[in-house]
Amino acid sequence: MAGFTPSLENLIDKFASLPSVGRKSAQRLAFRILDMDKDEVNSFIDAINNARSSVHRCKICCNFTDDDVCSICSSKERDKSIICVVEDPRDVIAFEKTHEFAGLYHVLHGVISPMNDISPEDICIKELIARLGDGSVKEVIMATDPTVEGEATSMYISKLIKPLGIKVTRLAYGIPVGAELEFADEFTLIRAIEGRKDI
Amino acid sequence: MAGFTPSLENLIDKFASLPSVGRKSAQRLAFRILDMDKDEVNSFIDAINNARSSVHRCKICCNFTDDDVCSICSSKERDKSIICVVEDPRDVIAFEKTHEFAGLYHVLHGVISPMNDISPEDICIKELIARLGDGSVKEVIMATDPTVEGEATSMYISKLIKPLGIKVTRLAYGIPVGAELEFADEFTLIRAIEGRKDI
Repeated sequence: MAGFTPSLENLIDKFASLPSVGRKSAQRLAFRILDMDKDEVNSFIDAINNARSSVHRCKICCNFTDDDVCSICSSKERDKSIICVVEDPRDVIAFEKTHEFAGLYHVLHGVISPMNDISPEDICIKELIARLGDGSVKEVIMATDPTVEGEATSMYISKLIKPLGIKVTRLAYGIPVGAELEFADEFTLIRAIEGRKDI
Repeated sequence: MAGFTPSLENLIDKFASLPSVGRKSAQRLAFRILDMDKDEVNSFIDAINNARSSVHRCKICCNFTDDDVCSICSSKERDKSIICVVEDPRDVIAFEKTHEFAGLYHVLHGVISPMNDISPEDICIKELIARLGDGSVKEVIMATDPTVEGEATSMYISKLIKPLGIKVTRLAYGIPVGAELEFADEFTLIRAIEGRKDI
């Protein structure tokens, strides 16, 4: 049986290895690439290279940024006494869309997950603890996903923070349990912030 | 409101411009790229560049190939008296999976579509006619998608070929009308080949 040509098969394989991309979708994407003119392909490749080389973690909150310090950490209008701890940069975007939270964030880049061999050292917990040393932070809101691993990570971090005399709260369960935070709508997130409770 | 960093937004935009990729999927893809190590990113980019530079159209049947002439056209085991005309290289793969058709193919790379400003000159019709001059071809099977535009393209091509004294047939309607050929299963395609009719 004749298949696609090797270089095309290779490109299809690469696309198929990306998350949520099946074989048929990967074919569509690869065929679209073949349809592109040279400028389009180059600007696509530049976008990949630029993102890879420019995007790194904010040295304060670990969110993605093109600069040393992200726009939220460097803003003078944010309340620096409160930090909302999330798993993923997408969660920051979700909160920002509510226009309700004026504090700072801290992005963990994952959750503790012994099943997947992710230990506390593998996510940005030490960076969070380092931010709490100067006494300016009065409250830490734990906003990990309401999953077993998200909950466990919250508990772990709250036990580290409480001895420092800082209030630790957890998002209220306005968020449907088991769902992923990045897909929550604005109003659910607003209610979740308002109803937050001490852990 | 703070969004993603500009270079990340740009990459998300690029992915979102690909077919069947929504905003959330584009975010997932872009985040996956950021997660890749340098080698992975480079091999991804190489795959794009290689496919773009290596893949071109077979000078006989217009199917994609890395060589001058594709593996089907250059095979000594194929029946060179019969040509199956399809819209898209993916349709060739679909037919090859049936292991039932031993003739050659011709890939049109589209259908005539006045609505989308695609005229007969924009697809590979002249290349097909050029193959019919030496008298070796006895039958042309029109296997465009069973859509209005696919049918019209079939009719248009059959009117060009009939004066040459070559038999022109159309796939039987084993294929569900309105569907896309590349998604048809093997058995439907086999029945469609067997039941083909003169146009």
